[in-house]
Amino acid sequence: MLNLETYISERVTQIDSALDRFLPMGERLPASLHQAMRYSVFAGGKRIRPLLMIAACEAVGGSIKSVLPAACAMEMIHTYSLIHDDLPAMDDDDYRRGRLTNHKVFGEATAILAGDALLTQAFILLAGADPDSGSSAADKLRVLQIIATAAGSLGMVGGQVVDMESETKSVELPIIEYIHTHKTGALILAALQTGAILGNADNQAFAALTRYGECAGLAFQIADDILDIVGDQSLLGKDVGSDVHRGKATYPALIGLAESRRRAEELRDMAIDALAPLGSEAEPLRALVSFIVDRSR
Amino acid sequence: MLNLETYISERVTQIDSALDRFLPMGERLPASLHQAMRYSVFAGGKRIRPLLMIAACEAVGGSIKSVLPAACAMEMIHTYSLIHDDLPAMDDDDYRRGRLTNHKVFGEATAILAGDALLTQAFILLAGADPDSGSSAADKLRVLQIIATAAGSLGMVGGQVVDMESETKSVELPIIEYIHTHKTGALILAALQTGAILGNADNQAFAALTRYGECAGLAFQIADDILDIVGDQSLLGKDVGSDVHRGKATYPALIGLAESRRRAEELRDMAIDALAPLGSEAEPLRALVSFIVDRSR
Repeated sequence: MLNLETYISERVTQIDSALDRFLPMGERLPASLHQAMRYSVFAGGKRIRPLLMIAACEAVGGSIKSVLPAACAMEMIHTYSLIHDDLPAMDDDDYRRGRLTNHKVFGEATAILAGDALLTQAFILLAGADPDSGSSAADKLRVLQIIATAAGSLGMVGGQVVDMESETKSVELPIIEYIHTHKTGALILAALQTGAILGNADNQAFAALTRYGECAGLAFQIADDILDIVGDQSLLGKDVGSDVHRGKATYPALIGLAESRRRAEELRDMAIDALAPLGSEAEPLRALVSFIVDRSR
Repeated sequence: MLNLETYISERVTQIDSALDRFLPMGERLPASLHQAMRYSVFAGGKRIRPLLMIAACEAVGGSIKSVLPAACAMEMIHTYSLIHDDLPAMDDDDYRRGRLTNHKVFGEATAILAGDALLTQAFILLAGADPDSGSSAADKLRVLQIIATAAGSLGMVGGQVVDMESETKSVELPIIEYIHTHKTGALILAALQTGAILGNADNQAFAALTRYGECAGLAFQIADDILDIVGDQSLLGKDVGSDVHRGKATYPALIGLAESRRRAEELRDMAIDALAPLGSEAEPLRALVSFIVDRSR
């Protein structure tokens, strides 16, 4: 019987220690930049994307060693996107996860550059010659291309632009789905696919994890939208209702809270169904998608 | 006898047509983002970095085909850095190369995201499976890691942070050299080294091009500092004297105009000397470093 709490905490410990190893020390010149990078990477993130990548790799028989650098790169890309999203020119947020946002501590210019440097550091890591990884150069290039594509103008950054442009406009469900599948979904899907590749998945397992990733990614974002309305501010560490306040495009705003919940649970079940070919090795992935849908922060 | 003007214009035509091919179309969703990316990429840049990469590749007997995607990636990284440098939180520039800066046309949020997307697009390209390139996966990873390292917190972004922090402070020559070798020099050096790798240079040629890249990179930045003081505003397309106005750390401010000129010319000669092992194939590189030092814009 899987204990998800133990599963997560053991892996988060390894992720955090690897992130520490893969980031330049805070004393290294320019110290302000490296401190700003570390501030946001170690600001209490849930490590959902690296956890999913590790779980996908393990579900097909791969080892955590072979996936840890890519998992850390994924978290650096996620962190850079949060730093830039919080900027005054974007969402203008003062707090995230209960702590001051990067630009409130280090200033706007350093925050922009810390985001730039984290994105770049992710690719340094992904291209890295890690003797422990056991992955071929061709696999590394494929992983790098999947992650970069998911993060770029046709993925996460594209979703952020459409999200921004849809504020205070009345938008239809297809636009919300575009925003969600691009802004959050693309990177989550990439985490599953690259975990599969680095675990040497066969085609059937790769397809199963792809399907799981599509469903879990959208479920994650709907759950986020719901939390913005009903969440406990002290657990979330950010203002509840901030999406509503901004007129952001969300599921509950368009289809209501009850229907949003139903849809998130349906996607959770579809994600779990997709894992059928993988057997018991995929137990952590089943538990993770339930955790994602039912979480309170 | 090499005609540098013809050499440059032939290659810039190929670079520009490849950049057009390697960027999503301006109509593609989100259109505002792709238009913003294209606006700055096609804003009259001199394509110095891709030209140097191509010339390095050709100097060791490689073909332009094998280096064109990486050369375009290099230009995208350079362009992203200019977009972010021009932001209100950074240098707050309204004009670059005689045209409005990205954020003046598309707004600050889109400009930040267009920069992010260009940086990411560069890595999509570098990881790309280009059947024409003829480079091995291992060489591509090595190229990617050299470029990412040169662009990151220990390279270009680091140089930008120290440059920013040194404004209005009195700084010593070692700090100016740090800024120059990191902010501009790192990417120029990376252009030479990756051009060498993609042209299958042997160790001696790689070392020669590395030495050339170190000298040419610093010469380029000293020439830039000089142009900021004595340049013709109509040719430069930006405010002459803007570095002085901001109290920026420059060579002429510290060692005077005449000594700066002497130093730039000395570096040019050292760059040319470094090419001795490469013979006549390196003629374009010799002409390019002279062009860099003697240019009027």
